[in-house]
Amino acid sequence: MKTSPLQQARYQYTPKLPGMLRHGIDEICVKEGKETESVADQAKIKALFPNTYGKKEITFVKGKNNNPKKKEVVGVILSGGQAPGGHNVISGLYDALKKANKDNVLIGFKNGPSGLTSDDYLVFDDEYINAYRNTGGFDIIGSGRTKLETEEQFKVAVEVCKKHGITAIVIIGGDDSNTNAAVLAEYFAAHKAGVSVIGCPKTIDGDLKNDDIECSFGFDTATKTYSELIGNIERDANSAKKYWHFIKVMGRSASHVALECALETQPNICLISEEVAAKKMSLSEIANYIADSVEARANNGMNFGVAIIPEGVVEFVPEFRVLIDEINELLAGSKAEEFNKLSSWNEKYAFIEKGLTKESMAVFALLPQGIQQQLFLERDPHGNVQVSLIESEKLFSALVKDVLEERRKKGTYKGKFSALHHFFGYEGRCAFPSNFDADYCYSLGYNAAMLIQNGFNGYLSKVSNLSKPAEEWVAGGMPITKMMNIERRHGEDKPVIRKALVELDGKPFKYFEAHRKEWAKETAYTYPGAIQYYGPREVCDLTTRTLALEKE
Amino acid sequence: MKTSPLQQARYQYTPKLPGMLRHGIDEICVKEGKETESVADQAKIKALFPNTYGKKEITFVKGKNNNPKKKEVVGVILSGGQAPGGHNVISGLYDALKKANKDNVLIGFKNGPSGLTSDDYLVFDDEYINAYRNTGGFDIIGSGRTKLETEEQFKVAVEVCKKHGITAIVIIGGDDSNTNAAVLAEYFAAHKAGVSVIGCPKTIDGDLKNDDIECSFGFDTATKTYSELIGNIERDANSAKKYWHFIKVMGRSASHVALECALETQPNICLISEEVAAKKMSLSEIANYIADSVEARANNGMNFGVAIIPEGVVEFVPEFRVLIDEINELLAGSKAEEFNKLSSWNEKYAFIEKGLTKESMAVFALLPQGIQQQLFLERDPHGNVQVSLIESEKLFSALVKDVLEERRKKGTYKGKFSALHHFFGYEGRCAFPSNFDADYCYSLGYNAAMLIQNGFNGYLSKVSNLSKPAEEWVAGGMPITKMMNIERRHGEDKPVIRKALVELDGKPFKYFEAHRKEWAKETAYTYPGAIQYYGPREVCDLTTRTLALEKE
Repeated sequence: MKTSPLQQARYQYTPKLPGMLRHGIDEICVKEGKETESVADQAKIKALFPNTYGKKEITFVKGKNNNPKKKEVVGVILSGGQAPGGHNVISGLYDALKKANKDNVLIGFKNGPSGLTSDDYLVFDDEYINAYRNTGGFDIIGSGRTKLETEEQFKVAVEVCKKHGITAIVIIGGDDSNTNAAVLAEYFAAHKAGVSVIGCPKTIDGDLKNDDIECSFGFDTATKTYSELIGNIERDANSAKKYWHFIKVMGRSASHVALECALETQPNICLISEEVAAKKMSLSEIANYIADSVEARANNGMNFGVAIIPEGVVEFVPEFRVLIDEINELLAGSKAEEFNKLSSWNEKYAFIEKGLTKESMAVFALLPQGIQQQLFLERDPHGNVQVSLIESEKLFSALVKDVLEERRKKGTYKGKFSALHHFFGYEGRCAFPSNFDADYCYSLGYNAAMLIQNGFNGYLSKVSNLSKPAEEWVAGGMPITKMMNIERRHGEDKPVIRKALVELDGKPFKYFEAHRKEWAKETAYTYPGAIQYYGPREVCDLTTRTLALEKE
Repeated sequence: MKTSPLQQARYQYTPKLPGMLRHGIDEICVKEGKETESVADQAKIKALFPNTYGKKEITFVKGKNNNPKKKEVVGVILSGGQAPGGHNVISGLYDALKKANKDNVLIGFKNGPSGLTSDDYLVFDDEYINAYRNTGGFDIIGSGRTKLETEEQFKVAVEVCKKHGITAIVIIGGDDSNTNAAVLAEYFAAHKAGVSVIGCPKTIDGDLKNDDIECSFGFDTATKTYSELIGNIERDANSAKKYWHFIKVMGRSASHVALECALETQPNICLISEEVAAKKMSLSEIANYIADSVEARANNGMNFGVAIIPEGVVEFVPEFRVLIDEINELLAGSKAEEFNKLSSWNEKYAFIEKGLTKESMAVFALLPQGIQQQLFLERDPHGNVQVSLIESEKLFSALVKDVLEERRKKGTYKGKFSALHHFFGYEGRCAFPSNFDADYCYSLGYNAAMLIQNGFNGYLSKVSNLSKPAEEWVAGGMPITKMMNIERRHGEDKPVIRKALVELDGKPFKYFEAHRKEWAKETAYTYPGAIQYYGPREVCDLTTRTLALEKE
């Protein structure tokens, strides 16, 4: 395999551990904190997790480690979408296990949680691990989206663990995967399987965040990559002075990515889905909001700009949600066949006009024809509209164009409007982890091994104080149940980790809100440039603006 | 203005000059080479450039500079699309002028060549220049696409130069802009205007390249940025193992960008427009070529891959070219009105079927409907098809899908094929220049000032030996007329600098050709990562694989 010069250089990088994990493993001991309670629905969560609920938070401190050096066989799983740093969680875990006892074994289950239930695995050794240190991607063992949640799966898991003599499983995943880790931990405890489960918080979306998780790993690198590109496009816009760039960024359910990119690059416009929902904004209100910036800038001779659009924003527009529900209803069952038989779009349009309520038809009529057709022609196997396929960056630029044409007729707008479109998502999920993510992930994995060695089960590997230099980071563990509440999912009450949305009274949004009026009118772009792995500390070691503002 | 930590750090970067320009300006003298001849059509070019043809190539060497220190007033112009490093050409030019004589003046004409003819300008000072050192973009004075080519424009240019006391103009641009620089130089000489003209070779496309220009500036940074993203996507593809990514990269008339990115990232497929033209490949042949890789990989359990598509490739497919010409003919004049009156696509399709030759109709029928409609519905002001709007990445993935479906029916293909699409262009044109581009551009500007100080006119600022460390670079000048030949443009014979296409017997293509069979079948991805400005030399100072192979 040919490796790039950067990859060769990154192999030599030594990730920074929290100060308290820099002692020999024999000199690290557990400091117990308070017993924990779940963030809500305590009685229900306790009843569901009788064996793992209410445990104490712990931190590691310098002191004699009295645990016997029993041999550990640990299985590790990557779950869900890629995030930069996953390889470092595994290498940190591997290094700590080998340091604690050279006979310890780390097994990687392949292609996600299904690797455990199908017993598809590999055993790590130095040579294998060394080829993945400080690199991006999840290709070290692959990932997958199978969920471990049924009794049947758990039974198989116990068998597989027995076969290998596994003493612990580390699950690297998002909110759902960590919820499932807690359920699996409870199952193992209830069945005295002798296997503990530790979770690690991963997701570039940044929506796995709470009092105990300052940020999920990968968010730093992914947003730095998107911000690099957005900054470059801003500079291009400000040089060519003739295009408005509509840039969609990943993040379907929360707008943390969009907000962080906005804080890094100071674009003219950034939509925040949570605000759209809170203010119950209509498509037309959003289009007018953007058009106000286009018009104000045009009046100052600037017929260019940059707008950031979070991937999932249309799903947060109430009237659009209603429209989608009506379309799904309109095409349910045999009605889809009737619709499909109509040969021309004109006939189909008449069918739609007859079937939708007046309100939804008004929303539908606003949409550009390409998106109208997509809503009806591309449906998932259940016949539902595929909202995720909607090119919202093109939708909004089309709506803005219409608004501007109206304003031109009224004489208030006299500028030129040419739009270009971009979508950034896959570009950032597998970048080489930033120094921050490389350090944080290595620490999460190393720390997970410490939790295992100390016999904890159902815990999340917790590393905090992250806005400070790594030396000052705090390492420990938190019972996953502490982060859970009960939510209605698919018509059932489920214990889950609450997804973190952008808080409209949180400091990052407040900062954005305080500046966006100026950014909308002026050219206040900031150009972050490419992620740097070397150089001055302020260039290569700092994490997100979001975290800095939250910890201010 | 808020600047990013990287921008602050880059202000401190000192670009590396060629060794021979590191002496004081008093210690640099001119070494004359041979008299030059144009690469072809010598008699015609000589007749067109009686005052500037046949001059000697020169290089700078250590020695006493005997030129009187007369005051220079220099105007600089950015022409055409953005390329990383433009700001450094200007700062190098500024620094050398001020070093030679602190009374020298540098004037920037705004928003491209039209800034000269409309006398829209600013005067540079230290504070202004310092805010742009080592940064991307052309926002320092803006750029534009106006061409300086008419007698009328030249007359105005003489007036403006007289008004400011201008002694030299530096034009930073691509092949057309440098051609026009030569014409302007000849005009100034013929009219004894006392103004010299120096050109600097810019373009991210890499197609301004010849015996005298080893590479145009910006190509290094832009291809590194695209390669970063392609590498990240490759790693994502290899982690998720479920998508084929079709990635279009900028470069309409030549495929240097695509080829360099392929050399950096080793994708499964990279189309090269020049090869498509040379082999007279049809759409169906190209689709089958890609499908062969998809099928071979699927047979090895790999239903994922990455294909790089150069922006302009469809224009190089002979049958597609014919189709476009027929469509333009079919819609010429009043026929467009007739076509536009047809209300449904079915009627329009019948009109098209009647109007195209059988051969072109067969090509048309292959295309996905979205692209069929685009060809007829979106036309430029002259009524012509807008070939540049064609989303060729989507075109080829659709054609490949069709081929695979046929193969599935025949039983030879049993895989899964899901495609995702990307276009990278604007992301790379305004990145912070790589160390190479920062050094090269600063040297080009510094060297341009040396050429001016030594009284040269109609010269290109030439810095060569670029695959070696900057210390060993060679600085000098080459008459632009030496690079010219006569080409037929818009029905007229014109003296122009020949555009450099990818040479199919050149070393970069030969290397690609020798490896692509393996890359098509295996997963041989290389992950270059983000541009580094700091760190080990092999990580932050090396230029392109293209240049390394060419200089092997």
